[in-house]
Amino acid sequence: MSVFGEPEVRTLSPALVVGSGLIGASVGMALTAQGVEVHLEDADAQQAAVAMAMGAGVTEPVAAAAVRLVVVATPPEALAETIAACLDTYANATVTDVGSVKGTILATLSRREHDMTRYVGSHPMAGGELSGPEHAKADLFTDKTWVITPHDTSNAHAVLDVRRLIELCGGRAVSLGAAHHDEAVAQVSHLPQLVSSLLAGLLTGVPKEHLRLAGQGLRDVTRIANSDPSLWRQIITANSAAVLSQLQELQRHLQWLLDRFDDPAAIEGFLAEGRAGRQALPGKHGAAAREFAVVTVEIPDAPGSLARIFATVEAAQVNIEDIAIDHDQNREVGFLEVSVDPAKAEELTATLRAAGWTVKE
Amino acid sequence: MSVFGEPEVRTLSPALVVGSGLIGASVGMALTAQGVEVHLEDADAQQAAVAMAMGAGVTEPVAAAAVRLVVVATPPEALAETIAACLDTYANATVTDVGSVKGTILATLSRREHDMTRYVGSHPMAGGELSGPEHAKADLFTDKTWVITPHDTSNAHAVLDVRRLIELCGGRAVSLGAAHHDEAVAQVSHLPQLVSSLLAGLLTGVPKEHLRLAGQGLRDVTRIANSDPSLWRQIITANSAAVLSQLQELQRHLQWLLDRFDDPAAIEGFLAEGRAGRQALPGKHGAAAREFAVVTVEIPDAPGSLARIFATVEAAQVNIEDIAIDHDQNREVGFLEVSVDPAKAEELTATLRAAGWTVKE
Repeated sequence: MSVFGEPEVRTLSPALVVGSGLIGASVGMALTAQGVEVHLEDADAQQAAVAMAMGAGVTEPVAAAAVRLVVVATPPEALAETIAACLDTYANATVTDVGSVKGTILATLSRREHDMTRYVGSHPMAGGELSGPEHAKADLFTDKTWVITPHDTSNAHAVLDVRRLIELCGGRAVSLGAAHHDEAVAQVSHLPQLVSSLLAGLLTGVPKEHLRLAGQGLRDVTRIANSDPSLWRQIITANSAAVLSQLQELQRHLQWLLDRFDDPAAIEGFLAEGRAGRQALPGKHGAAAREFAVVTVEIPDAPGSLARIFATVEAAQVNIEDIAIDHDQNREVGFLEVSVDPAKAEELTATLRAAGWTVKE
Repeated sequence: MSVFGEPEVRTLSPALVVGSGLIGASVGMALTAQGVEVHLEDADAQQAAVAMAMGAGVTEPVAAAAVRLVVVATPPEALAETIAACLDTYANATVTDVGSVKGTILATLSRREHDMTRYVGSHPMAGGELSGPEHAKADLFTDKTWVITPHDTSNAHAVLDVRRLIELCGGRAVSLGAAHHDEAVAQVSHLPQLVSSLLAGLLTGVPKEHLRLAGQGLRDVTRIANSDPSLWRQIITANSAAVLSQLQELQRHLQWLLDRFDDPAAIEGFLAEGRAGRQALPGKHGAAAREFAVVTVEIPDAPGSLARIFATVEAAQVNIEDIAIDHDQNREVGFLEVSVDPAKAEELTATLRAAGWTVKE
């Protein structure tokens, strides 16, 4: 209730989550933790039962007219049909979905007769390599970007309901049109997935003894190639036009390089452009990428070593910006790489050495 | 001296290192630490002086006839000329180099009149993002693969001298022919560099607000795009034929995908092939890639937190396979991701929670 006309916060309870995989179950857990009554629905009753056991809500049916919010979290290919059915069944509910692609859903829905005023799409930029409700977490969305994609006929109440959902889940709402969203994720997510798979696919033809020469660079470039092919087939297919356009731009950029492969200056220009693109990515805490000094300490690959090294680091009162472990491929030791402010590296190295640790630089 | 005819180990002292950047200075430090008398030569006297200060050797000249081993560690473009000059000047020395590409050097040298019996190329698979002698380390090569590329007329003594060099530096010698080596590094190192740069280069045309949606996947794929364009221009140019062949294979693979982009089954097949290629990469300690459970703990971004968390982990007596920090982009907290044997994850989670830490799963 507000004197100055601020919109009243409507209750989202009871809510229905359709599809209780990693994302659906995590939404259920987050809403339940905020006091919302959550009902779960899943074509796979076993999966819904696991989600209920995780604290994502209850599998008992709910009176259709009572439902205030429906979150559709099915696999990508089932989204449009499920959203349509929910708009018809839950006549008093705002309906949203958490799909990675928005345009194809809107196109499918707008060809039919549904009350589209109550539909507002959304897309939390969160997930994980492990799928299924058993990996769900109430804080999966905490401080993560969650794109909200209102369309031309979305009504204000529905948009505010989805904003409230994002708020209850701890996410940060960013509003983008559907086509705009789809182009952005084609660029920063779908194309990188295909590029990683493209390079990794060539490795199937590389002799094992050549792969022994592989370093961290190849590992990083191909990490996401390990993702689920079926899920990504659905995502790519749903965003086909935007991804195809990106792939064609990639192909032109590759052709540009191939056409000039006898010109060292062109190759250097190509590499410099890549560096500029990489440096345009925001760094941690949203700030521009920043250089840290790396102090590398040898650690035996056994319990307890890290605790003792960190106890030494604590004594040095140096803030740790990042850490990584580099495992030696041939003997059972690892190296701990501690990233710190360059001004603190020397002091930290001295402290570690004084405590008897082997510091590489 | 061996009764059973094992080759006598010849001394490598005095040795000359030509080019005192990261690799040359590190070789000098490693050899010096093993009692070898090392002389340093560099077109940039300042750089040689820094290397000397690092303990990589001395900048005083050495009598040419006395030199037993020459290690050429100049930038790639200067390698062939420098090796040729050293073969002529140091008539009693074995000459090697540490270049990333071997075939072009051999081709250049074999067109001319030098005593090629004393030349044996090599390539340590070690380095770093930071160049220059100030980042050199005596143990840069410890347990790293170091490829040795004998050619048709390399004599046995020269090969054994380079094996001895690798041994003194702590590396692991792997013998490959020059063309074989160049094909292998084109596949596992040079092509991945160009692919990362290719994708990153497109980011220069992506609006800033789209880049805000970028996650860890894009960051990983483009990490090595941040490498030095001039150094990589020289490497790519020197291995032009092998890299071009790889790029053309990449282009064909991309064309295959583009030709079938309206076929979901083809897209899924493409993604599955990428996953298979990624899984063909050897994991840590040379073993096949293996899955670990990841326990995620919230850490305040302040000194000391990690030490206290690791003290708790130590109490759990769980071996840590890997660790990573995931920084929250919006608030000043981080999450520590601890990879452990899946059988130990539950126990570790319980221990951490009992100690008051917030564990995400």
